[in-house]
Amino acid sequence: MGNSFGKLFSITTFGESHGAAIGVIIDGCPAGLEIDLSFVQSELARRKPGQSKITTQRQEEDLVKVLSGVFEGKSTGAPIALVIENQDQRSKDYSHIAESFRPSHADYTYDVKYGHRDYRGGGRSSARETAARVAAGAVAKLLLRQAGIQVNAYVSQVGDIKAPDYKKLDLGQTESNMVRCPDPATAERMIALIDDVRLKRDTIGGMVTGVIQHLPTGLGEPVFDKLHAALGHAMLGINAVKGFEYGSGFAGVSLLGSQHNDAFYNDGDRIRTRTNHSGGIQGGISNGEDVYFNVAFKPVATIMQDQASVNQAGQEVVVSGKGRHDPCVVPRAVPIVEAMAALVIADFLLLTKSSRL
Amino acid sequence: MGNSFGKLFSITTFGESHGAAIGVIIDGCPAGLEIDLSFVQSELARRKPGQSKITTQRQEEDLVKVLSGVFEGKSTGAPIALVIENQDQRSKDYSHIAESFRPSHADYTYDVKYGHRDYRGGGRSSARETAARVAAGAVAKLLLRQAGIQVNAYVSQVGDIKAPDYKKLDLGQTESNMVRCPDPATAERMIALIDDVRLKRDTIGGMVTGVIQHLPTGLGEPVFDKLHAALGHAMLGINAVKGFEYGSGFAGVSLLGSQHNDAFYNDGDRIRTRTNHSGGIQGGISNGEDVYFNVAFKPVATIMQDQASVNQAGQEVVVSGKGRHDPCVVPRAVPIVEAMAALVIADFLLLTKSSRL
Amino acid sequence: MGNSFGKLFSITTFGESHGAAIGVIIDGCPAGLEIDLSFVQSELARRKPGQSKITTQRQEEDLVKVLSGVFEGKSTGAPIALVIENQDQRSKDYSHIAESFRPSHADYTYDVKYGHRDYRGGGRSSARETAARVAAGAVAKLLLRQAGIQVNAYVSQVGDIKAPDYKKLDLGQTESNMVRCPDPATAERMIALIDDVRLKRDTIGGMVTGVIQHLPTGLGEPVFDKLHAALGHAMLGINAVKGFEYGSGFAGVSLLGSQHNDAFYNDGDRIRTRTNHSGGIQGGISNGEDVYFNVAFKPVATIMQDQASVNQAGQEVVVSGKGRHDPCVVPRAVPIVEAMAALVIADFLLLTKSSRL
Amino acid sequence: MGNSFGKLFSITTFGESHGAAIGVIIDGCPAGLEIDLSFVQSELARRKPGQSKITTQRQEEDLVKVLSGVFEGKSTGAPIALVIENQDQRSKDYSHIAESFRPSHADYTYDVKYGHRDYRGGGRSSARETAARVAAGAVAKLLLRQAGIQVNAYVSQVGDIKAPDYKKLDLGQTESNMVRCPDPATAERMIALIDDVRLKRDTIGGMVTGVIQHLPTGLGEPVFDKLHAALGHAMLGINAVKGFEYGSGFAGVSLLGSQHNDAFYNDGDRIRTRTNHSGGIQGGISNGEDVYFNVAFKPVATIMQDQASVNQAGQEVVVSGKGRHDPCVVPRAVPIVEAMAALVIADFLLLTKSSRL
Repeated sequence: MGNSFGKLFSITTFGESHGAAIGVIIDGCPAGLEIDLSFVQSELARRKPGQSKITTQRQEEDLVKVLSGVFEGKSTGAPIALVIENQDQRSKDYSHIAESFRPSHADYTYDVKYGHRDYRGGGRSSARETAARVAAGAVAKLLLRQAGIQVNAYVSQVGDIKAPDYKKLDLGQTESNMVRCPDPATAERMIALIDDVRLKRDTIGGMVTGVIQHLPTGLGEPVFDKLHAALGHAMLGINAVKGFEYGSGFAGVSLLGSQHNDAFYNDGDRIRTRTNHSGGIQGGISNGEDVYFNVAFKPVATIMQDQASVNQAGQEVVVSGKGRHDPCVVPRAVPIVEAMAALVIADFLLLTKSSRL
Repeated sequence: MGNSFGKLFSITTFGESHGAAIGVIIDGCPAGLEIDLSFVQSELARRKPGQSKITTQRQEEDLVKVLSGVFEGKSTGAPIALVIENQDQRSKDYSHIAESFRPSHADYTYDVKYGHRDYRGGGRSSARETAARVAAGAVAKLLLRQAGIQVNAYVSQVGDIKAPDYKKLDLGQTESNMVRCPDPATAERMIALIDDVRLKRDTIGGMVTGVIQHLPTGLGEPVFDKLHAALGHAMLGINAVKGFEYGSGFAGVSLLGSQHNDAFYNDGDRIRTRTNHSGGIQGGISNGEDVYFNVAFKPVATIMQDQASVNQAGQEVVVSGKGRHDPCVVPRAVPIVEAMAALVIADFLLLTKSSRL
Repeated sequence: MGNSFGKLFSITTFGESHGAAIGVIIDGCPAGLEIDLSFVQSELARRKPGQSKITTQRQEEDLVKVLSGVFEGKSTGAPIALVIENQDQRSKDYSHIAESFRPSHADYTYDVKYGHRDYRGGGRSSARETAARVAAGAVAKLLLRQAGIQVNAYVSQVGDIKAPDYKKLDLGQTESNMVRCPDPATAERMIALIDDVRLKRDTIGGMVTGVIQHLPTGLGEPVFDKLHAALGHAMLGINAVKGFEYGSGFAGVSLLGSQHNDAFYNDGDRIRTRTNHSGGIQGGISNGEDVYFNVAFKPVATIMQDQASVNQAGQEVVVSGKGRHDPCVVPRAVPIVEAMAALVIADFLLLTKSSRL
Repeated sequence: MGNSFGKLFSITTFGESHGAAIGVIIDGCPAGLEIDLSFVQSELARRKPGQSKITTQRQEEDLVKVLSGVFEGKSTGAPIALVIENQDQRSKDYSHIAESFRPSHADYTYDVKYGHRDYRGGGRSSARETAARVAAGAVAKLLLRQAGIQVNAYVSQVGDIKAPDYKKLDLGQTESNMVRCPDPATAERMIALIDDVRLKRDTIGGMVTGVIQHLPTGLGEPVFDKLHAALGHAMLGINAVKGFEYGSGFAGVSLLGSQHNDAFYNDGDRIRTRTNHSGGIQGGISNGEDVYFNVAFKPVATIMQDQASVNQAGQEVVVSGKGRHDPCVVPRAVPIVEAMAALVIADFLLLTKSSRL
């Protein structure tokens, strides 16, 4: 029920925050793809906790193990099972919330939906589940690399501090600082803000921008599974995401058609558009221009402050923040956004093989 | 390929703008539901062209015909096929674009993807396809009505003109004016703006807000198919949509956790939250509060002006706007947003029957 | 719920025996395929009632109409909707069974499952639904023809009368007689038997054999969706089918491995097997040899005799056979078996494009 | 690609014969189900190699480990990941077939389909994969137990030795002997035959009969996903299966309608049928009578004899049987047939919740 994603390049994730392990099965990866495990591991390192002073101080190595589907370094066409054992499981940190509902967490809704809930560390609702997506996304990226497609994301906003437009940035600089904003000056301000918020035992929201380049024309299905609809589905399925826009996005609401339309021209090689309000997608199908999109993240719900709430019996309680949490989710969300985008594109890449005779 | 939506309450649409007919098959509607055809027809009337001076002047009656799945006024559990014959098919209006690519339309991407394209009126990329969704959505609404769930949408922004927050509005007034904004003063200004834009042979963007009320707690699947991810997928699949946000949305980016968290309390009857930045969804699952969301629409791509473009041979051409088109898409998009939301909720309503023993 | 078949080349059927129309949406047919409507119509003629003295005498023309997805004679990549209007709807023939349960029909199970049942002519359980499959299967055949693949079926048994092995037959002779058995002598005996059964107001079972030739090596997915598992699913979904076997089939139960194994050899062009007990499928994947299979059909449940039964109130009743029915279903089942086989192969043909880099 | 089975109660398996581990993710198990791990383990013991003198002498403990989805002994609604580590991996046993194609195995077809093949022990085509199905099927059985449904299978034929009809057997005796035939006299003869075949370094085919009892009326979807079509799909997906029949099966071909029809009567409690040629399914939907079916297994392809074949280069080679293999697959196939049947029924049990209002 909702633990699978993708039609041909399809993944299924499993695992709770404080269970034995988390993992993912990738079904549909074409045979013959070189599976560079060190790349998968390096992607996980970008997401793992404890990587800098502005992320949670939990230490998890997130070592990935391949259980199947890879032989002599290459995919065989069989399902690829990747497992990450859980190590730093301080379940006691969570005993206080076994019966109380943390505000803006999934405790209450899980309780009503399932009756029986694994409350340790949020169980299945923990962002830990996204490590499995990052691992699978790394495999998808290897497939895209074969096709020359590049997927990048970076932190474009924290609180009210915004980075310049992606076209003015060197996306190769994203990993040069701990907040993953490729503009050094903005990054510095973002880091200072997050650090300030952290000291106030609070959290803050942020935005991640994704950019997909060198995408072939023709990806995406025209009606319900438009390329951006699939990307939106993917992004909105990431914990803490509140919104998705692509191309002109919400700003397009205020524009006139004469301002918004992207004029076609022939650049000699191929047909291109002079502007790109379309965000690289027209009629739900990629047109060869950059696909770019924004993903809005709310502030992390766990704050180091006392909050009024109720418990399972419906009584008023005070929930106090404990444990080790992120003051701002976006630096670690960057590889997750990239992973989900790569999974979407990998799926369409395979689906598109059937579009025409 | 992407013409179906929903897992248990599932629809498949077909039909081109200028083909023989458009339609939809609903598979998975439980048996025993009274199918009020006049309601289905009235929903279609809200979407049909020619309904006011601020919509396209094309005249289409959009008469729906039931081919199957209904017996003695009730659903039988068999697929319900609904067909709408195309009537006002002035194909000649489109002959000029058979070989040229209209800016920000799907002409170019379809051409590359499929090689062979039905260019008449945009073919499958025409918003006419959404009539099939409105018909299916009306059946979904009948199912939701049984469960006491209410789905409403309205125009919340045109250009820079914005309606007040939904909590200050009487959603029962949405149909009282042609722009479908329940605030009469705002509606008047929106209508004036659209009319002005129309006279300038231009188009303008807008926003539709959706509100789902009396939703039971527990709908939505926690990982990839979070309730808002499915809603986002549904909305982003509507023509001209550029963005989706729910609850605090993009504004949540700038907030602190201490501002954003929704405190739980017990109102005697049930557990509720004092604020609703969560937009009625926590951990991807409905919590019983209102689900509300915004959908951003770009300006309609067809403008009554000359635009530079290229043709299939890659030569520079001028494309001039012809035909009868909407200066602003949002008034007619309201029933489409409602339909897609109803389809999502109907599907989760059935899926949730299996959540627990 | 179960009205769709296929993953990439996917069909959804609708329609009841005595409703307005039946039909099918084909989603996923690649663009650019020539849709020879007269071929589709000729396939329907092979299935239609009233075609000979050994089939039901109902007269239905089964004229197919294309509502979408075809432009200038070719598929566009959009869903292809095919509709057949119901004409000879003598609903009165069925009024007597509105409340009684016909033995070995679906009346009772539909009643319990759905509560509300379209009893006219069996409604959705009528074999009339298979006309939609034959229409869709004809389109699949056109796709297979492009790939040089041939799908044939014929009547291999009626009662105890059996045709020789398919390798001794000229499959081009199947249409030369009304029972669709390519061996003229056997056909004559089959026809006599069916005619005899008909005069006794009874019905009789039969078997259809399918043969798929010139199939490329590599079709089929190795675990749950083995090529023969998908074929079996397809065949067992046809009304009145009780069994499916391929290759050595049930006879393989009695064989030794040393008898059953198919030795490989190199015929110069490609690797082949000397025998073909494998039925052209090894490990669930086609090996380039003929795929052949048998489909067992029970005798038609409607007999022109009085039968003891019960009604909805649980009271004992006598149900008498009325209407115009087939004494033996297999002559008309031949095109249905071919259609379902073609749909399976078309789907795998598209799926296999993603098997390797 | 074909490694998932089921729509609501859905499983995805992974793992090769000689990789690190095999396993399964169950997605869609309702929350609150007691997961009796010792039962899961006991089901695996019925399938494991080395259990008697008539099975392969390989020793594998098949210890199952739960990685997720179970908390305090009950399912949580999250995916249940079950993993079995591979232990007895004598890869050297298979080095001789790295480049040669074993007759009637999947070596050749995998090679053509994927290009890159894990040849160790047959890799993904090994029947070892079915251990994952048995583990998942055990969980499905726990769900069915709650609903009072019983799924049994037994060996009904080996070579030409046949057991009496299931109604004359005490299905509780199936586990009383090593061949899993509940009739002691027949079992003895079967065991002798298998032992004889084994000494001749050959293998032999067999048949497994499945019986599902106390099934509620109304399971199954009427068109493509008829209950028996789903069962057939499930059974034909098991390694070495060549055929499936239910109810009267292939014998129904020779019967008259007047012989085959099952007369309804009212037994006071509910409506029943006097005979059960329908095999408990009418119109694709369960009618409350026993569902029974036969599954035909070919002789195991690995024989301890020299066989002519070709290698990847297309040269003639002799393949000699090595390793430790089953002389007859059916004794160990019994729990696999039960598992697949239980998975089908569990899925329909959940699907049927949406059939009517």
